[in-house]
Amino acid sequence: MDREERYAYGLKVLNEVDGEAGQRVVASLADVSPELGHQVVAWAFGDMYARPELSPRDRQLVTLGVLTALGGCEIELDVHLNAALNVGLTATEIAEALLHSAVYAGMPRAVNATLVAKKVFAERGIPPVQNLS
Amino acid sequence: MDREERYAYGLKVLNEVDGEAGQRVVASLADVSPELGHQVVAWAFGDMYARPELSPRDRQLVTLGVLTALGGCEIELDVHLNAALNVGLTATEIAEALLHSAVYAGMPRAVNATLVAKKVFAERGIPPVQNLS
Amino acid sequence: MDREERYAYGLKVLNEVDGEAGQRVVASLADVSPELGHQVVAWAFGDMYARPELSPRDRQLVTLGVLTALGGCEIELDVHLNAALNVGLTATEIAEALLHSAVYAGMPRAVNATLVAKKVFAERGIPPVQNLS
Amino acid sequence: MDREERYAYGLKVLNEVDGEAGQRVVASLADVSPELGHQVVAWAFGDMYARPELSPRDRQLVTLGVLTALGGCEIELDVHLNAALNVGLTATEIAEALLHSAVYAGMPRAVNATLVAKKVFAERGIPPVQNLS
Amino acid sequence: MDREERYAYGLKVLNEVDGEAGQRVVASLADVSPELGHQVVAWAFGDMYARPELSPRDRQLVTLGVLTALGGCEIELDVHLNAALNVGLTATEIAEALLHSAVYAGMPRAVNATLVAKKVFAERGIPPVQNLS
Amino acid sequence: MDREERYAYGLKVLNEVDGEAGQRVVASLADVSPELGHQVVAWAFGDMYARPELSPRDRQLVTLGVLTALGGCEIELDVHLNAALNVGLTATEIAEALLHSAVYAGMPRAVNATLVAKKVFAERGIPPVQNLS
Repeated sequence: MDREERYAYGLKVLNEVDGEAGQRVVASLADVSPELGHQVVAWAFGDMYARPELSPRDRQLVTLGVLTALGGCEIELDVHLNAALNVGLTATEIAEALLHSAVYAGMPRAVNATLVAKKVFAERGIPPVQNLS
Repeated sequence: MDREERYAYGLKVLNEVDGEAGQRVVASLADVSPELGHQVVAWAFGDMYARPELSPRDRQLVTLGVLTALGGCEIELDVHLNAALNVGLTATEIAEALLHSAVYAGMPRAVNATLVAKKVFAERGIPPVQNLS
Repeated sequence: MDREERYAYGLKVLNEVDGEAGQRVVASLADVSPELGHQVVAWAFGDMYARPELSPRDRQLVTLGVLTALGGCEIELDVHLNAALNVGLTATEIAEALLHSAVYAGMPRAVNATLVAKKVFAERGIPPVQNLS
Repeated sequence: MDREERYAYGLKVLNEVDGEAGQRVVASLADVSPELGHQVVAWAFGDMYARPELSPRDRQLVTLGVLTALGGCEIELDVHLNAALNVGLTATEIAEALLHSAVYAGMPRAVNATLVAKKVFAERGIPPVQNLS
Repeated sequence: MDREERYAYGLKVLNEVDGEAGQRVVASLADVSPELGHQVVAWAFGDMYARPELSPRDRQLVTLGVLTALGGCEIELDVHLNAALNVGLTATEIAEALLHSAVYAGMPRAVNATLVAKKVFAERGIPPVQNLS
Repeated sequence: MDREERYAYGLKVLNEVDGEAGQRVVASLADVSPELGHQVVAWAFGDMYARPELSPRDRQLVTLGVLTALGGCEIELDVHLNAALNVGLTATEIAEALLHSAVYAGMPRAVNATLVAKKVFAERGIPPVQNLS
């Protein structure tokens, strides 16, 4: 694949996983760092995300762990919480994944990520998460 | 103590230390991750904060150090700067603790935490901090 | 459950998930911070890990993401890479999860975590990981 | 140099490098932590930045790397992206430095820093950055 | 004070607080970055640590919080755990401060810092820490 | 370019910049995550490092800033401190870049990176760094 084909392939993966939210981030980079937008699409999605060794649902669990731990990634959590729902994680599972992160990344990181989830769930009309146990 | 008793005890500690600011964070979690709210109250405050090995004033000094170093914890710093004042740290001591953090966490982390302190001090009508030396 | 029962329950979960590696970390804390060892067992495993909202396999994917992103967690990665294998992730899936982390946490964090995986896989006699694609 | 002379010298360096953006941050600290403002000026700029071992342009490349990696430093990136332009880095070089950071600090940190650059470039009327290659 | 006097004053403070452990770190920098050694002594200790707004004991609580949260600071924790004991914190209080950090920085950071404390306490012949509660 | 050509091109860039140190890291990944090794070579060096928008010397200044700020990157700093010398930064400039990082990332991160530089400089027979000023 050449550079344009790698981009086209990555864009297809990005659209399946992230939907509009991912495209908005890429678009926002167009006039300041078109190459960063290209790499997000062609490399992060085309080369990396599309690999068959791990399912999209599994990838999103890893991604939620990374973004929660990093902190300061509200923009990216918004995209990837939408992606998590898109690839089959339920709101309950997502809330639990962020709760689980509290053990390893501390309460503040988990609270911050959970407040982004609250916003994303509300935007998608998802009813309040309740504990199973 | 059972689960409800642990929560009730933690809530009593939380209210003494954090006042309204802490309750607001817990309330904001109610419809997205009630268990995270439960753990903040029952575990972080009931099990951990309430232990007698360290005074609340000492705990807040540690907490300010951790939150300043982590970065991206403006919501939590708001709560814990209020808590710091509630348990007896003066505005001068708090500003100095954040200044001290600059040595180990760098100037940006210290500046960011200090700007949250500026907001909290203003909300509570605390006059400008002046240097002793 | 009282304090001792919570510990006993957590220890059962810890042993199922982490095996000996987890017990070694808890034992290493016994003469410096027995309460930290208690909280790792009773809270992190008994209260949090054991919740049914997320499977152990899913939890380990999140944990690997968090620990990779934090950096400097070689001791904990050793424990949790063993745990990941114990709960059903394959070496190929684990290597891919760490590779995936590189997109969000950068190459150095992914390389460092992968070098711990190399050690753990070797200790367990796991043959070299090969790409599917 | 005494304390006041060190401050005056640092302020001269700060003004040359950061211009108004740096002064605004120092001014914002005046009523909450005047000593932190003093240290930013007298130490960070007077003692450290002014040293001849590294040019201002080189220093800003290092600073952009540090601030991008730390995350949560939007206020400081605003100041230092302006500084980077002031000391001779072009918008293309800056965008590339942030893109380069993605390899080591991950895509989210690079995207976040680049979105601050987008704002700073727009405020200064800099035309869209285009790829050379 | 001129540059040499500031260094001499900082060295006096460093020796009182850190003892030999701090001097070893400064000595280790002598042939690679004498200015970094100078700044640790003259600025971090002479200008910052020596300020009267916060007691040495309070400063060490903040420092332990920052270093635990940063992670990867085993060398610095070694110095500052010794310093914490030197300025009057007991081993029980130190272990509790690190335990408290777990709430905000997560279990791995707290475990890692506690394992450095274990080493420092052993070197100084401090008997095992026991829970009060 | 196809996958193999991208790898070959990246390897050429890697060898020019990092020399043996970079190849050792890639080789260490061969039996645990060959794809991570591939991405370091083909993407990080072939796609990103080789871009003409920023000189290798400028890239290494950014990289040193990022790796110092991240912490826990001793393996990568070893490679990139060698690379920094290979692309024309002097030992004095490198020590100064790490000193400069202390302002933004704090003293511990700067000290840790500087101690890796001490090792690398010694291995290459570089005489002690002295202050110009």
